[in-house]
Amino acid sequence: MPEHFSDRLLKAVERTGSPVCVGIDPVLERLPDSVAPHDDDALEASAALMEFSCRVISAVAEFVPAVKIQAACFERYRAEGVAMMYDVVHHAHEAGLIVILDAKRGDIGITAEHYADGFFNPLGLDPLQTRDDFELDAGELELIDAVTIHSYLGADGIEPFCRNGRGAFALVRTSNPAGDLLQAAKLESGRTVAQHVAAMVADLGRACMGTQGYSNLGAVVGATKRAEAADLRALMPDTLFLVPGYGAQGAGPDDIGDCFNSDGRGALITASRSIIYAFDDDQREWESDVAAAARQFAREVRQAIA
Amino acid sequence: MPEHFSDRLLKAVERTGSPVCVGIDPVLERLPDSVAPHDDDALEASAALMEFSCRVISAVAEFVPAVKIQAACFERYRAEGVAMMYDVVHHAHEAGLIVILDAKRGDIGITAEHYADGFFNPLGLDPLQTRDDFELDAGELELIDAVTIHSYLGADGIEPFCRNGRGAFALVRTSNPAGDLLQAAKLESGRTVAQHVAAMVADLGRACMGTQGYSNLGAVVGATKRAEAADLRALMPDTLFLVPGYGAQGAGPDDIGDCFNSDGRGALITASRSIIYAFDDDQREWESDVAAAARQFAREVRQAIA
Repeated sequence: MPEHFSDRLLKAVERTGSPVCVGIDPVLERLPDSVAPHDDDALEASAALMEFSCRVISAVAEFVPAVKIQAACFERYRAEGVAMMYDVVHHAHEAGLIVILDAKRGDIGITAEHYADGFFNPLGLDPLQTRDDFELDAGELELIDAVTIHSYLGADGIEPFCRNGRGAFALVRTSNPAGDLLQAAKLESGRTVAQHVAAMVADLGRACMGTQGYSNLGAVVGATKRAEAADLRALMPDTLFLVPGYGAQGAGPDDIGDCFNSDGRGALITASRSIIYAFDDDQREWESDVAAAARQFAREVRQAIA
Repeated sequence: MPEHFSDRLLKAVERTGSPVCVGIDPVLERLPDSVAPHDDDALEASAALMEFSCRVISAVAEFVPAVKIQAACFERYRAEGVAMMYDVVHHAHEAGLIVILDAKRGDIGITAEHYADGFFNPLGLDPLQTRDDFELDAGELELIDAVTIHSYLGADGIEPFCRNGRGAFALVRTSNPAGDLLQAAKLESGRTVAQHVAAMVADLGRACMGTQGYSNLGAVVGATKRAEAADLRALMPDTLFLVPGYGAQGAGPDDIGDCFNSDGRGALITASRSIIYAFDDDQREWESDVAAAARQFAREVRQAIA
């Protein structure tokens, strides 16, 4: 029986002392000159994103328990990008980090099973076999630890991702302004759509609990929705929150307190652009700058929940 | 200025006389023996799915204007699967078909732009350049014609997909039973969540109209939700409906009438498993059986709306 995702994540948070996560969302235009591609074909572009991502991961690994890799940044380059993305996953695992793939998949039944197999069980192989048994690149057998998913399709779209030591974070309340039109709409029940989804996620999550009181089914709750966090926390007491929107999207240490339970557990705060592009114009020390930003981010969040 | 997606789709429907679409959702377990892989590694498996899909497409191309390719079936095999998927897209285009990628992506801003670039503008190249200018496999420069997307994030998640002669179908009402918990919930406004989303999609769609009265932003409306179709049609008069759920999921000719406008336009009915696995046990004539099922499906839908 593999260890529960929620237990592994909580243990990793305890080890580093900081419930934070760095988002790996690289784009070619913002890479340091030293890793920028010479050519802009898919292979060169993907390789440059891969190199940058791996160096960012090495720089931040000491300070954070997890990274959130943005699938779109790699899938944008189709097959070559996907291959390189799994090389980044491999590197993050070698660095001891939990890997959350921000893929926001959302389909049902057998289709959702296909996505889950692709992330969690490539080739249908026994995950305990080592990759030395196969002639494969390092990344090809890497298993994603958890993936972000949509909630709109209900249980059919969520349950296939809750299995086998792996986790999922279902979208409940997103950080973008245009999300309000639907997510903040009031139902006849008095709840907002986001609160209605929260109750559903909490309910489904009870079927896949870890041993430390948290479900393997988590929720995405944007840090920019500070006023709603306490209500969502109350609706989902046993749910791990993945909290984007910190840093470049505008949220700060004062916005995140209500995402946690009173014991200081239950949320993972994510910052992306404010960390991975934290270097200054001369770029000579770019990896040190990224490491310093990650350390500062981890400290800020620790202090906010202390 | 490239031709609008909605115009191209309506023209293709007019050419074949049938507003139908075959869903390409192949799984290894159901392939005919003659195309089953000898080995189950990602490359062999993906190649078998590709061969089967291409032969299905050749068999049905005479009867249908479009195919809907299920991304998960290929992405399940990671990079190899993605490469093969675009070879299928290439084959469908060579056969003169419109290609809708059922990828159900759902993210915002720059991330949504990445997805759209991957589908609609790989490598950021001018789509008018021919692939002969590049040393690439046939599939690598194929552009998807339209993609399915999620609506939960609002305009930020939808607008990036409406561009440049391409289209998108936003999830409004899905065909699965568990979708009801959220999509059929009543808002204070008196509308259901699905109706609220429908109004949003209709509104956003007005910014990207084709010349024949339909928007390049369409909607996914399940054929299994017959009782709701007329209300959704009224809320989205200028929206093309992509209608899954016909055949194996249980919906039939009596369920689809309200998805169309009174002039018989405005919807594309999709059947997947009931067509692509229509062969009988001896399998010798499997491509003829698939072709016959597609012809019958097209006729059934034509008669239903006549």
